[in-house]
Amino acid sequence: MFQSFEVVTDPANGKPRLEALRAELKRRDLDGFLIPRADVHQGEYVAARDDRLAWLTGFTGSAGFAATLGDKAAIFVDGRYTIQAREQVDVGAFDHLSYPDPGLSGWLEENLQSGQKLGFDPWLHTLREKRQLEKLCKRAGAMLVAVDTNPLDAVWDDQPDGPSEPVELHPAELAGKPSSEKLMEIAGKLVKAGADACILTEPEAVAWTFNIRGHDLPHLPVALSFAIVHSDARAEIFIDAAKLGDDVRETLAGSADLFPVDAFENHLTALGKDGKAVLINPSRAASAIAMAITEAGGTLVEEGDPVEKLRAVKNEAEQQGSRAAHKRDGLAMIRFLAWLDREALSGGHDEISAARKLEELRTETGELRDISFDTISAFGPHAALPHYRVNSASNLEFEANAIYLVDSGAQYRDGTTDITRTIVFGMADADMRRTYTLVLKGHIAIDTVKFPKGTSGAQLDTLARYHLWQEGLDFDHGTGHGIGSYLSVHEGPQRISKLGSVALEPGMILSNEPGYYREGAFGIRLENLILVREADEVPGAERTLYDFETLTFTPFDRRLIDTALLSEDEIGWIDEYHATTREMFAGDLDDADRQWLEAATAPLER
Amino acid sequence: MFQSFEVVTDPANGKPRLEALRAELKRRDLDGFLIPRADVHQGEYVAARDDRLAWLTGFTGSAGFAATLGDKAAIFVDGRYTIQAREQVDVGAFDHLSYPDPGLSGWLEENLQSGQKLGFDPWLHTLREKRQLEKLCKRAGAMLVAVDTNPLDAVWDDQPDGPSEPVELHPAELAGKPSSEKLMEIAGKLVKAGADACILTEPEAVAWTFNIRGHDLPHLPVALSFAIVHSDARAEIFIDAAKLGDDVRETLAGSADLFPVDAFENHLTALGKDGKAVLINPSRAASAIAMAITEAGGTLVEEGDPVEKLRAVKNEAEQQGSRAAHKRDGLAMIRFLAWLDREALSGGHDEISAARKLEELRTETGELRDISFDTISAFGPHAALPHYRVNSASNLEFEANAIYLVDSGAQYRDGTTDITRTIVFGMADADMRRTYTLVLKGHIAIDTVKFPKGTSGAQLDTLARYHLWQEGLDFDHGTGHGIGSYLSVHEGPQRISKLGSVALEPGMILSNEPGYYREGAFGIRLENLILVREADEVPGAERTLYDFETLTFTPFDRRLIDTALLSEDEIGWIDEYHATTREMFAGDLDDADRQWLEAATAPLER
Repeated sequence: MFQSFEVVTDPANGKPRLEALRAELKRRDLDGFLIPRADVHQGEYVAARDDRLAWLTGFTGSAGFAATLGDKAAIFVDGRYTIQAREQVDVGAFDHLSYPDPGLSGWLEENLQSGQKLGFDPWLHTLREKRQLEKLCKRAGAMLVAVDTNPLDAVWDDQPDGPSEPVELHPAELAGKPSSEKLMEIAGKLVKAGADACILTEPEAVAWTFNIRGHDLPHLPVALSFAIVHSDARAEIFIDAAKLGDDVRETLAGSADLFPVDAFENHLTALGKDGKAVLINPSRAASAIAMAITEAGGTLVEEGDPVEKLRAVKNEAEQQGSRAAHKRDGLAMIRFLAWLDREALSGGHDEISAARKLEELRTETGELRDISFDTISAFGPHAALPHYRVNSASNLEFEANAIYLVDSGAQYRDGTTDITRTIVFGMADADMRRTYTLVLKGHIAIDTVKFPKGTSGAQLDTLARYHLWQEGLDFDHGTGHGIGSYLSVHEGPQRISKLGSVALEPGMILSNEPGYYREGAFGIRLENLILVREADEVPGAERTLYDFETLTFTPFDRRLIDTALLSEDEIGWIDEYHATTREMFAGDLDDADRQWLEAATAPLER
Repeated sequence: MFQSFEVVTDPANGKPRLEALRAELKRRDLDGFLIPRADVHQGEYVAARDDRLAWLTGFTGSAGFAATLGDKAAIFVDGRYTIQAREQVDVGAFDHLSYPDPGLSGWLEENLQSGQKLGFDPWLHTLREKRQLEKLCKRAGAMLVAVDTNPLDAVWDDQPDGPSEPVELHPAELAGKPSSEKLMEIAGKLVKAGADACILTEPEAVAWTFNIRGHDLPHLPVALSFAIVHSDARAEIFIDAAKLGDDVRETLAGSADLFPVDAFENHLTALGKDGKAVLINPSRAASAIAMAITEAGGTLVEEGDPVEKLRAVKNEAEQQGSRAAHKRDGLAMIRFLAWLDREALSGGHDEISAARKLEELRTETGELRDISFDTISAFGPHAALPHYRVNSASNLEFEANAIYLVDSGAQYRDGTTDITRTIVFGMADADMRRTYTLVLKGHIAIDTVKFPKGTSGAQLDTLARYHLWQEGLDFDHGTGHGIGSYLSVHEGPQRISKLGSVALEPGMILSNEPGYYREGAFGIRLENLILVREADEVPGAERTLYDFETLTFTPFDRRLIDTALLSEDEIGWIDEYHATTREMFAGDLDDADRQWLEAATAPLER
């Protein structure tokens, strides 16, 4: 199993560990210290070795941070983790605060005193974060002190070793572009930006650039590593040699010089000493990287990682891979939904057993490398929590006449998937049907829109919400995020949200996942992945038009659709989508599942 | 007449005037100089005294700038003015360049040489512009030199005097809020921003804050003036005393100390000497203002003008005023459209005679203070130019079976209007009807949308374009801009465009003006003003909903509507809009106009 449902933390550890940390801070003459949920790469997942926040506070959510200052300590989590943090963290040791408001800034403003020394690990904070901290400290008359080694590590007795899983090559037929060509493209971007080199601080960027994949982190197939790419397309990779088999080492050596991670900082210093202009992303690169370069005399070109945009536009091979991955994954999803309809109410089934079954069916494809994130298997009121993760304590048994929402995905070598379906066990009430249908209308509006070249995701986002808005409803997350090719299930810069200012380009893959959440009752989210492409020719068109190819095929729950709320065009879209799904999968199913699919994809009754 | 149709410039003046300027620059030991189309307030209109760009180059458009450097000179205009600049400017003296690309930056990068001295008038460039110029000069190894007095003024022999029209009080029943209350609100914003004072650099801001109006500029009822507001709500106004009658002077003296404009710079210096933190808008305030403060020891708080957002939300009196102004203006528009239908093809009528007639009908209201901008009276292919302004050289005579687009507005004491209607003379072809109807669908989508509190104009913009996009069409301007209360017809910060990131709030007035332009053939734009308000209660709504009250009532041309492209709801909206229009105005029209209105507002045939 790639997913665990056990609760592994104990609030009782909080107090003694905090005391040990404070003693260590005292030894180092520091008044306070910050503990973000971050490693040196600032990504979504951290290895066990780097989960300092969980070790100290007990909180295991995917985002948050803690701070200790004098005899006060606090943990900061956002709205989705308020309840979880209250369960996992000792309220006697840590105040619970939410961000963005008041957040760390508000707390420090209130508590930081003139003359105090606030420690931070410059490898665990981005350059942007460091600048904000500097401002805060300056205003309070306090000192911000970068530590050489992390004081928490000094008191974490049984801190695990860092991961060291073998690296594999991502084959040319799936990558679609050799590393040499990618390096030339990056070099071209550097020349344009007036930079001599750039630092690839994200393991995903290293993986994409050099066509490798790894297994150091849960759900994200990367090897922890850094790289430097120069404007003449030379490159260095900083990676633990133990992860590299002979073939991988030889292939990598063809496009880059290989060094241990320990050598990374020296190379940064060398860039600085040579007076180089180095491109880094200030919102993502660790401040220690910026400091090493500038303190040695180099200058920074602060811009988005040039790999990010290159990687976002999938080439033909990646697009083909994604279609194949979605076909494979769709079959598992259909078998899962058919199984649910037969078994969910047969007794003894619950959120965990359903998530296990889904992973099992994906494993039966024979191609599953990982799930792309912990499955959101959410029954009834849990479906109203967009980021709900079931564990043995929260697990709900299935009952009739309620909603079940399942948001999940797979990592296959040819592509990453992400799909959400919402179904009803037993009978749906009118309100579930009404809101499901409004969400579906938004989903269809995004799937079918044609838009001129240059249009951003921000410009499309409203189409997903329009029908909800007219009824006074909405959802508090973006409509869509980018997805990698056997890489991160959350990838920038493209997104469909009011913040998505990047123009959509053919080859970009996005999710289309409007939702609706009624607290304490039920939730709805309908998610397919979609691929930006050039639209079929429209007679008389004066602009270059793009639209979306649908990648995900799995039935929507007909029992939750209120056709009275749909236009003829919308009904036509659903029937056609279902007919395509039936054609794609009917031949690969056993009799029971095929019968289920035929019923599930029958034309809507009007 | 508030609008002139004469061509008043002569390209032949360009060369000798440029030579005179260059001689003056040489006397001052400068290698180059910049001539923006700007006065010290950086607004949309300039007085004749400040139209240095027109004097030097002959170009009379509302945006552009020129530069001279060594023996080269160039004029920079944006896409809408390319043709006009070519007609008005001597191509032998000035290179024609467009911005943003390559723009002044590109030109300076190419031509500016190490060691050269580039002069600029710090009163005519914003702080942001000055910083960009500094960067450019630094990169080229050149020096940016702020002049004490403008060298162009030194060689402009017959430069007119500055305007000195009498100021009038904006009565309490129209302003809806006394100046004292507005000053308290501004002071509150200053305290929040950590500023000791702010500079009101825009005459509109001074006019709004102190409830005065003036006549120094065309179409914008303001008096050229500055003000300083302190965080304790004290204020100083800097204005030519000759503009103030006794009553106005006494009223103003009740809320501010009055000084001549000459004293402004000394007050800025005094703020600096006192070490004050002064709020200015770096995108709008003249760089000379920032320099005066900081060089004397003050600091800047760089933020949007606090008046801008306060002014954008109209109070009850202003909303009532706007409704009354629109009712008055609607009657003039209806009489105009009825007249056009009777007379346009009767011979001898043209773009100019129509614009004159419209102004005449507005004058007949007895309340017209000014038109709110030069009327866009555009026949046939001219309608495809969104910013077309007719003059005696471009004037087209009306002919049958073609489109006429009229975009115009009025300044009444109780409100500012802005309306665009597109009509057909004779018969419309299928393409005109199709595109008109697509634009109308976008107009209706904006007019009818309900949206949750917090929604920005950027999030609504797509609704105006959606139906055009599906046919491969679009328009290259925003959907809507803010409008003042007997103030500027273009007002921020609210707007409906992909750049409109400010949340819409009840009381804001916007235009709703989608369009479609077919180069060389015809153009369509349909514009009403709309007022943000709390929506009627929607059963089951979970969010606070806003929607728009329509302010403008004037028929849409039924001959251009293709009902086959409309939904039942859209047809219902048009019929209801027309019925309301008929009810509002039928009683105030003579027989001929009433008959016209009844036909023009009859229910659509399906």
